[in-house]
Amino acid sequence: VSLETALAGALEGGPVLTDPALTASYETDWTGAFSGRARCVVSPATADAVGRVLRVCASYGVGVVVQGGNTGLVGGSVPGGGEVVLSTRKLCGLGPVDPVARQVTAGAGVPLAQVQRAARGAGLSYGIDFAARDSATIGGTVATNAGGVRVLAHGTTRAQVLGVEAVLADGSVLRRLGGLAKDATGYDLAALLTGSEGTLAVLTAVRLRLLPPDPPLQTALVGLAGLAEGLVVLSRVPDLHAAEVMDRAGVSLVCAVAGLAEPLPAVHPAYLLIEAPDLAALADLAGPGELDAVVAADGADRARLWAYRERHSEAIATRGVPVKLDVALPLAALPAFAAELPGVLAAGTRRVVFGHLGDGNLHVNLLGAAPSDADAVLRLVAACGGSIGAEHGVGRAKVSWLHLSRSPAEIAAMRAVKAALDPGGLLNPGVLLPT
Amino acid sequence: VSLETALAGALEGGPVLTDPALTASYETDWTGAFSGRARCVVSPATADAVGRVLRVCASYGVGVVVQGGNTGLVGGSVPGGGEVVLSTRKLCGLGPVDPVARQVTAGAGVPLAQVQRAARGAGLSYGIDFAARDSATIGGTVATNAGGVRVLAHGTTRAQVLGVEAVLADGSVLRRLGGLAKDATGYDLAALLTGSEGTLAVLTAVRLRLLPPDPPLQTALVGLAGLAEGLVVLSRVPDLHAAEVMDRAGVSLVCAVAGLAEPLPAVHPAYLLIEAPDLAALADLAGPGELDAVVAADGADRARLWAYRERHSEAIATRGVPVKLDVALPLAALPAFAAELPGVLAAGTRRVVFGHLGDGNLHVNLLGAAPSDADAVLRLVAACGGSIGAEHGVGRAKVSWLHLSRSPAEIAAMRAVKAALDPGGLLNPGVLLPT
Repeated sequence: VSLETALAGALEGGPVLTDPALTASYETDWTGAFSGRARCVVSPATADAVGRVLRVCASYGVGVVVQGGNTGLVGGSVPGGGEVVLSTRKLCGLGPVDPVARQVTAGAGVPLAQVQRAARGAGLSYGIDFAARDSATIGGTVATNAGGVRVLAHGTTRAQVLGVEAVLADGSVLRRLGGLAKDATGYDLAALLTGSEGTLAVLTAVRLRLLPPDPPLQTALVGLAGLAEGLVVLSRVPDLHAAEVMDRAGVSLVCAVAGLAEPLPAVHPAYLLIEAPDLAALADLAGPGELDAVVAADGADRARLWAYRERHSEAIATRGVPVKLDVALPLAALPAFAAELPGVLAAGTRRVVFGHLGDGNLHVNLLGAAPSDADAVLRLVAACGGSIGAEHGVGRAKVSWLHLSRSPAEIAAMRAVKAALDPGGLLNPGVLLPT
Repeated sequence: VSLETALAGALEGGPVLTDPALTASYETDWTGAFSGRARCVVSPATADAVGRVLRVCASYGVGVVVQGGNTGLVGGSVPGGGEVVLSTRKLCGLGPVDPVARQVTAGAGVPLAQVQRAARGAGLSYGIDFAARDSATIGGTVATNAGGVRVLAHGTTRAQVLGVEAVLADGSVLRRLGGLAKDATGYDLAALLTGSEGTLAVLTAVRLRLLPPDPPLQTALVGLAGLAEGLVVLSRVPDLHAAEVMDRAGVSLVCAVAGLAEPLPAVHPAYLLIEAPDLAALADLAGPGELDAVVAADGADRARLWAYRERHSEAIATRGVPVKLDVALPLAALPAFAAELPGVLAAGTRRVVFGHLGDGNLHVNLLGAAPSDADAVLRLVAACGGSIGAEHGVGRAKVSWLHLSRSPAEIAAMRAVKAALDPGGLLNPGVLLPT
């Protein structure tokens, strides 16, 4: 029988999409930068069905690409060409919130925003948030160890994951959703799978830690002479919950595209959006007039200030398909990196840099980039002791630069783990590890 | 040449201990429950020297047992018989505290208390603390994903580890000590090694997260009718930093052995030691006279209350070598477990139960235990949805019960990872995974 017929059997009659009109939306990522043909698209609804799908694909020797909300930025969830796309959209069960243990179990295909709403409904909060919250799935956030705007206070996705249900390439199901706060009975397979970008197993559900709601936060937008001044703010304002940095190019672009007014009376080389329970220390940082800053007066004002940050991606997209680089640097190396960045880019390249200053995480967006630009930026990152991938992952986009951030010994160890759990190289071939 | 001569070469002349008078202290754990002969004892001082030692041992086909402070409670750091003991005591470098990034790098052999002191010296705090702090090494705490009394506020050791330096069985060195808060470039090998009990690699150094000091905490000791009442306290008092539970048997024993007065006017079936920035909610919990509790008046009083908890292990040790079981339960299952525990023990067995209520982590100590008792308790734990190892690990002591907490699919996945990174089964043979 054909692969498609065998898959239909594995899905007990569920659809196997092959019509290009139906598969097209699974074959290109939302930025338009990555695309590849799918052999077909399947949407199993249970872990057992995922296991049957994987066994069929293994027996036919066809690779499998896992796709959640398809909001990734490194091409990790679209086919390289000819794989079966396994969509997690039917793995959409969301369990009840346990208010005592402060936990919830979510299917891999549940959107991030739905988990956030469920937490709020129980008087709690989920530790991860970013702009793609309505489309990005929990499974995708775990597979990429997603970060976002709350990492400074609550850690990355790895810190929220208490357990997983996942299916290995041989179809066997790992299920550990009990949510025990302590469990020292061997290797933490959940921690290993978190951030593995679908190359070790297909995540089908996760047990998540929930948090008490944040205390009331004050929000301020501060004009900066540069990143060094931002680091001073970081070191002086206690208990920061957010510290988002933007350069002048990005704020100008957002103002133009979104029709927003300039955020501050003066124009600055950079801007820092901060949140903390108490911003009194900000006033102590400089004498009157020395720091150009505005503190949000109310919730509407807070949303107004956040718009400068959250509308960056859409504003940039109006100017073309950018090269998106997502890098992390040691805090102390940030000013040197920013100073050297213009010098490594081709003359005509326009750059918009923003990101999460408190985590040392910058999003370097390049418009009209020369072919050499990405390589030059990532080599500069490595020379500064940084990482070529901070929160978007490696995917297909960064795989040829993995060696800049990982030693041969580390890559060999990763290959050994990959071969142990997916000996046939079935899962997300071409993603993360060079083939 | 002999193994010993080859090891001396690997250590560039460093001592290879074979005299039983010198090796004896490495061959028995501090509880006296586990012991085995060492082929010899070596103490390499660098990761490269560890690599040379491992290559020698591999070529002679001799297993290696890694030993830090030898304070483990599951026999994971003493030989099974005939292995080379690799002591981490010379891996004792402690780097400077980075006050901006709030991090420090510690050699595997650095005692926990030394890291705590370094953090305090920089106006910071380390997230892990437990009674064996002066002897337990950082490497041991990472290898076992140690917990302790601060997990409720700050997470287990895994949450403190930002990176590791480790040597694989083939002698290759993984080194990732940059301490980036975000780094999504592949598998988190540090998270995989944390809690792997020396079976995947020899940890030589770790990069640790430090924290701002705790806010001023109030401390109270509360008399409880049982664990269910303790859970009510847990759910009502916000921002708990500690919630240590003790049963009547343990408090009586500590009072007798340490010569302490009864902690409260009345005698209770259980006691809960709690800390939080504000204990006002405790007063609201019950009308006057309904809750028998004392709040520490000052630092000396706080130390006095903590002594009831911290002196448990030494008090129990005066009554014999206990069977120590360290289990975790879903919070909701704790009262049922406590109610059923007496019924599964042999008639003559005495029990002392204490632990970290907020984490669902109970230390079940059995004195005069029957051979069937440990099995009966661990089966009860599994029936309640709990874990047979919460913070002490599996070691040699619990390896035959691993199947109660881990499914065949999980154990198969762990074996695959072990075989990938240590194909010769060189590291800590007989520990964690059944042979």
